[in-house]
Amino acid sequence: MAVIEPLRWADGRLALLDQRALPDQEIWLTCDSAAAVAEAIRAMVVRGAPAIGIAAAYGTALEARRLAPQRAAPWPETMAPALAQLAASRPTAVNLFWALDQVRAVLAADAGSDQLPQRLEQLAQQIHADDVAANRRLGDFGAALIEPGSVVYTHCNTGALATGGYGTALGVIRSAWQQQRLAHVLAGETRPWWQGARLTAWELMREGIPFSLNVDAAAAHLMRERKVAWVIVGADRIAANGDTANKIGTYSLAVLARHHGARFMVAAPCSTFDLAVASGTEIPIEERPCDEVTAVRGIAMAPRDCGAVNPAFDVTPAGLIDAIVTERGVIMNPTEAAIAAHFAGEAVVPKETAI
Amino acid sequence: MAVIEPLRWADGRLALLDQRALPDQEIWLTCDSAAAVAEAIRAMVVRGAPAIGIAAAYGTALEARRLAPQRAAPWPETMAPALAQLAASRPTAVNLFWALDQVRAVLAADAGSDQLPQRLEQLAQQIHADDVAANRRLGDFGAALIEPGSVVYTHCNTGALATGGYGTALGVIRSAWQQQRLAHVLAGETRPWWQGARLTAWELMREGIPFSLNVDAAAAHLMRERKVAWVIVGADRIAANGDTANKIGTYSLAVLARHHGARFMVAAPCSTFDLAVASGTEIPIEERPCDEVTAVRGIAMAPRDCGAVNPAFDVTPAGLIDAIVTERGVIMNPTEAAIAAHFAGEAVVPKETAI
Repeated sequence: MAVIEPLRWADGRLALLDQRALPDQEIWLTCDSAAAVAEAIRAMVVRGAPAIGIAAAYGTALEARRLAPQRAAPWPETMAPALAQLAASRPTAVNLFWALDQVRAVLAADAGSDQLPQRLEQLAQQIHADDVAANRRLGDFGAALIEPGSVVYTHCNTGALATGGYGTALGVIRSAWQQQRLAHVLAGETRPWWQGARLTAWELMREGIPFSLNVDAAAAHLMRERKVAWVIVGADRIAANGDTANKIGTYSLAVLARHHGARFMVAAPCSTFDLAVASGTEIPIEERPCDEVTAVRGIAMAPRDCGAVNPAFDVTPAGLIDAIVTERGVIMNPTEAAIAAHFAGEAVVPKETAI
Repeated sequence: MAVIEPLRWADGRLALLDQRALPDQEIWLTCDSAAAVAEAIRAMVVRGAPAIGIAAAYGTALEARRLAPQRAAPWPETMAPALAQLAASRPTAVNLFWALDQVRAVLAADAGSDQLPQRLEQLAQQIHADDVAANRRLGDFGAALIEPGSVVYTHCNTGALATGGYGTALGVIRSAWQQQRLAHVLAGETRPWWQGARLTAWELMREGIPFSLNVDAAAAHLMRERKVAWVIVGADRIAANGDTANKIGTYSLAVLARHHGARFMVAAPCSTFDLAVASGTEIPIEERPCDEVTAVRGIAMAPRDCGAVNPAFDVTPAGLIDAIVTERGVIMNPTEAAIAAHFAGEAVVPKETAI
């Protein structure tokens, strides 16, 4: 299997694969401060909820090393501006805030330690490694739900590029393909950022998984004509009741799946849950600039001064979700109670990865 | 009101506004044969079911004039290759075939007449004028269904550019705006050809109608958040039972509208009905080249050799349609019986245009 990584940590520097330039070019950008990482997240050099969380953790490690020689206050105070900058980079994906919470705990515990930069580096590497492990586990849990011979539909990019490696929804698809369960993958292009066309297509071609790309508006037609068994998506934030914020268009797909009798799976690590949020109505939805809709690579697609709305995410109500798959197992027909039980219970080891 | 025309007939030549270049440039291409018109239809210089029908009729007039000096056989035989070429230009919109049927009737009636070229010119001009009149009438019928203060959603371009002038779904929106019934129009960009971004936005801006553009995948989110009252679309072919073929994405919108309690209106002249076709399953769906999905204006958006599916249309079952509006009136909850009655009955004069 080809190794695809969205970021690399080497010699105390963070290299990010510039996902805006894919699939045409593989350009690696190097960051040496939290500010540089925050800007890379805002500008979507790195994107995908888990990858954003990992990048932010590395960003704090970079910043701690940068500030160590000149530090005049305890670490929590010294690092506060950097954490605020990272937290402001994108509002919807909760993995970012989850990672920063872990950083804060280390800062508080080692408030005066000269070893803090190394501790944050270790933390970031642990978050990174844990994410890859979680993806492989949830990939197997999700794949087990898919009948052999199935056609599945996916949206945006939830693959190795969106995570520490392997992927969430695309991790399920990778596992299902390895287990010979898939007949074909339909990938929506995912306007306005083309993550499906640029990134998911790139990953699927590298893996040799049979797929075709389609415009997002073709989803209903294809669900009916191709008899899609599962729609499989990732998540940017999952509320305590199972409502799921994810890339704009996800909610459309959930409604269409229900209408067509296709099942709807959300694949995400536990770090994507925000149990402090009761329901989807409380999740902030990022509005991005109009020109992401009205222009493509600087070429105007609409008249000058054309108004546009550009919500980057939408919220799918839990009632439209058949299964949420995490590294702990599967939550069928998610409800607040089922999710609470999922987090309270023992993690289940999937059969495919059992020792 | 700004005058927008997709085609002009002057001095025995057909000028077509090249809709592929809009909104950046207004380029007029001149056609002097049926072959040139057929190629313009295939290449989408002119698009929109009614406009295609009108252009095809003018194409036969051009061809008859071109062939008149050298004609060695009766007109039906002389013109057969041109009609076949026009019929093959695009398969889904029935207005094309409807117009060619009218041409055939004239050819048969005037099989040996030297006046045939003028007769076809008159026929094309009549089809053109009738289409504009039909649009204005159906626009008023449709507008009467819309409560004042409504937010409506439209797809593709169904305006003056898609018709002889005025528009079908966009004609309803024009009439509703003139009657002060509209709060806001949401226009889906309509990948892969961007008719919403390029053409509908251009027409709405010229008219001063308040609107915003959105990616197609945002439709469900916007229906929920903006409380869309009506989704209003055009049609390329309507079967005897009301099943409606229209631009890819229309069927998605119909499912989403039903889920959100928005109502769904199809606006089309009677020439868009194909009563010889019992249901939507018999309507051929045009598959267009992959590169319309994988590239934008020659710039690759997906990896080289990426496979794609590109159905240009989909079929919305009649059961998801609340109203079909024609120049004869309104068919609520369309069924085969209701449509038959609509065509059998007297045309209703809408209140707004009653003398």
